[in-house]
Amino acid sequence: MSEARITPRKQDYAQWYQDVVREGGLAEPAEVVKGCMVIKPHGYAVWEKMQADLDRRFKATGHQNAYFPLLIPLSFLAKEAQHVEGFAMECAVVTHTGLRAHEGKIEIKNELEEPYVIRPTSETIIGHFFAKWIDSYRDLPLLINQWANVMRWEKRTRLFLRTGEFLWQEGHTAHASHEEAQEEVQRMLDVYRDFAQDVMAVPVIQGIKTVNERFAGAVETRCIEAMMQDGKALQAGTSHDLGQNFGRAFNVTFQSQGGEREFVWQTSWGVSTRLVGALVMTHGDDDGLVLPPKLAPIHVGIVPIYKKDDEKARINEAAQKLAAELRDDGLVVKVDDRDGIKPGAKYYEWERKGVPIRIELGPRDLDAGTVMIKRRIAPVGPDGKAVKETLPMANLGVSIGKVLDEFQKFLYQRALQHREANTVSIDTWADFEKVFADDGSKFVWAHWDGTTETELAIKEATKATIRCIPLPGQGPAAAPGKCVKTGKPSAQRVLFSKNY
Amino acid sequence: MSEARITPRKQDYAQWYQDVVREGGLAEPAEVVKGCMVIKPHGYAVWEKMQADLDRRFKATGHQNAYFPLLIPLSFLAKEAQHVEGFAMECAVVTHTGLRAHEGKIEIKNELEEPYVIRPTSETIIGHFFAKWIDSYRDLPLLINQWANVMRWEKRTRLFLRTGEFLWQEGHTAHASHEEAQEEVQRMLDVYRDFAQDVMAVPVIQGIKTVNERFAGAVETRCIEAMMQDGKALQAGTSHDLGQNFGRAFNVTFQSQGGEREFVWQTSWGVSTRLVGALVMTHGDDDGLVLPPKLAPIHVGIVPIYKKDDEKARINEAAQKLAAELRDDGLVVKVDDRDGIKPGAKYYEWERKGVPIRIELGPRDLDAGTVMIKRRIAPVGPDGKAVKETLPMANLGVSIGKVLDEFQKFLYQRALQHREANTVSIDTWADFEKVFADDGSKFVWAHWDGTTETELAIKEATKATIRCIPLPGQGPAAAPGKCVKTGKPSAQRVLFSKNY
Repeated sequence: MSEARITPRKQDYAQWYQDVVREGGLAEPAEVVKGCMVIKPHGYAVWEKMQADLDRRFKATGHQNAYFPLLIPLSFLAKEAQHVEGFAMECAVVTHTGLRAHEGKIEIKNELEEPYVIRPTSETIIGHFFAKWIDSYRDLPLLINQWANVMRWEKRTRLFLRTGEFLWQEGHTAHASHEEAQEEVQRMLDVYRDFAQDVMAVPVIQGIKTVNERFAGAVETRCIEAMMQDGKALQAGTSHDLGQNFGRAFNVTFQSQGGEREFVWQTSWGVSTRLVGALVMTHGDDDGLVLPPKLAPIHVGIVPIYKKDDEKARINEAAQKLAAELRDDGLVVKVDDRDGIKPGAKYYEWERKGVPIRIELGPRDLDAGTVMIKRRIAPVGPDGKAVKETLPMANLGVSIGKVLDEFQKFLYQRALQHREANTVSIDTWADFEKVFADDGSKFVWAHWDGTTETELAIKEATKATIRCIPLPGQGPAAAPGKCVKTGKPSAQRVLFSKNY
Repeated sequence: MSEARITPRKQDYAQWYQDVVREGGLAEPAEVVKGCMVIKPHGYAVWEKMQADLDRRFKATGHQNAYFPLLIPLSFLAKEAQHVEGFAMECAVVTHTGLRAHEGKIEIKNELEEPYVIRPTSETIIGHFFAKWIDSYRDLPLLINQWANVMRWEKRTRLFLRTGEFLWQEGHTAHASHEEAQEEVQRMLDVYRDFAQDVMAVPVIQGIKTVNERFAGAVETRCIEAMMQDGKALQAGTSHDLGQNFGRAFNVTFQSQGGEREFVWQTSWGVSTRLVGALVMTHGDDDGLVLPPKLAPIHVGIVPIYKKDDEKARINEAAQKLAAELRDDGLVVKVDDRDGIKPGAKYYEWERKGVPIRIELGPRDLDAGTVMIKRRIAPVGPDGKAVKETLPMANLGVSIGKVLDEFQKFLYQRALQHREANTVSIDTWADFEKVFADDGSKFVWAHWDGTTETELAIKEATKATIRCIPLPGQGPAAAPGKCVKTGKPSAQRVLFSKNY
């Protein structure tokens, strides 16, 4: 039991984030491995829930999992010019094998003829195998997903959000036509949106990245963007139209129905453990982590309450019985019957871990056949205190199921309202600068002249970047206007924000 | 559709193995990444089924998953002397980060101050974090498991059985007493045995490794050993008593209930993708892969049979309806309604993929309200041909469930009989040499004088190694005798075999 407190968000948002991640038992910096982290059991359990849900969605859309090598020959990187430029500085390189312990020191032995990089992403190595596997249009579409670790050597890292090594899934598909590949790109972007909104309770905006923000090697990158509590954006998933770029680089061809040899059209798409960070920064509060029920490794924490020792056995037994009943209804329940820890300290710990519902079970409840539950974020009563609800013991699993459904929706609605309250349309440069002054950020819909030059000038001046050009229905109705910075013509507003 | 044939086992067992792995769509050599493989969708699906079952067993025994860094500082390896000696030559070393593309070539940029090795196993890095996490006896036992990729640079590799990179799980636990740690070692060895026998349908022998075959850094290694069809052994899982070796190396201490500072007692245990190779070599035949139903990604393949085009729509529709019904009963079913491929070719393909049951659905079956099923290994009738069974369409899911249960048991019994038929007790050196002459191997129970010297001399002479000293009940009743090689006294027979 650590007594470390959580820094309030208003005081220091970055420190609050670190505190919540630590106190929630999600992860810690690896320190001895630069920029890397250890994902602790509670954090890994959240990631497992994410994996299970996403994996089901990938399989339902026809994808199969496979596994490709961690190491990529150095020469592969060079085959797609944009790709190597984008990832070059982030590559970790394996140059040797074998060690020799010698007088208490360790020496490195054998130099490799060709070094390998640890995959920063797998388009190149998978391109190589697609070339072997694909021969005719009958082999298409080829729909593959990989769950894996990847490594990107970054200067500035932050737990979950940006780490040297991270866990992710990367989808890689090959198609007979550009149209089919484009459909796949949008299909998977929709899978990501549905997962973010329906499971993570995180509202997102779908859009297209500017050329400057595009994945290195793609002809188009689509994304989902979420707003964090500080008004900054977090890119929560990307889906890339790779065109024939990797097909050409790795000679991935097929015989078309017309008998011609053509390059395949490819896509790739991924989400990573950074989504755990997005969860923290969307729902957490000054008491710690808040988890949406669909991703909570524990739905209900039961704390037995008793004053006299002779009540203890009876209450603990009733708590176990109740837990068993709730488990039969599919809930994951923990009975916190640890000795020597006061109920208040237990409440505090379950709150910090983001458990959606706490049950306090005392002698009076047993006699009355009821239980007292408290939602992780409870409505506030007229007395200014959090409301505790009393539910009948009978059919408790069903009633708690309903409370969890409500809580899931509540979190989504709260996040959506927060985003709406912090989204503005802006038409003058003075107003634009004002929004992003100091550490401020909102979602800003503004006109942009479409050039990388202006995009970079705006970033230089305000630290705000173009998060995306919204897809239809994802932002203000498309209407022409004048660039907020240069006054030049613009076809539609795009989304600006500072970002993680 | 490849027309490549599978080499018969009698002709060339090693080539047969490669052929089955390739034709079953399990994996292929990565070639461009030395000693590594690509796990293809069908192979990965088998691994996923293994993972799901094992993960459930680990959680049921109180373990939590977590994730530790891929890279380990070079200096960590040196902290446990035995450990570094055992793994030194197999380490891949990361020495640099960052690339620069220059005139079509790629240069490596920044040398690291301290190189990292890619984890060959994680005792060292996990030891480091256990030291941070454990303070008091209240923090024990700490029961962690990790699903991860590891890398061991090996000279001779073979798909699944021994590859440069492989996927595995590694359990790492810390305890307050040696006794508790020893209980954990055996608990997890039992989990592995149950999984191997009840899920993989692979009978195993539980035993203790000799000092010479022990895990580098352990005080005792326990294992499960399975017999492959060629009479050789495959080590299918290991569970290590690490004593206080890593506790001392990484200063993992706890305050005992008595108030003393003590080193923790640790265990580690793992199984890997080599289990997929064990499946192939236990159950496969000259027609390809044979999968036990509990690990088969597809339980039933339905092949619609029709001669006239006007029957096609009716049969295909009935096949889909049947598949939907079977899916409602929890079965994974594939309807193979591909055009332009003859039923015989489809049969051939499903056989090579090891699908346990094939249904042939034709017009006569529909009229009669029956289906014709064929088990992947069907009993042979009096006419010498494989028996096809006719089952009523009504309640087919239930009847097929029973057939699958029978088939699972049949595979286990067949493997057990094969092992028993190829296990001998041997008392003379001449007989011992005879068993292992040429490429031969059996499971041989023989006396051994307990010295590494004799163990190595026997290996040198016959290529046979001591697979394990059997646990009680796992071999012949323990009785003293004389070493088969030296004639010196021996406390009990041990298990000799050639091995993978």
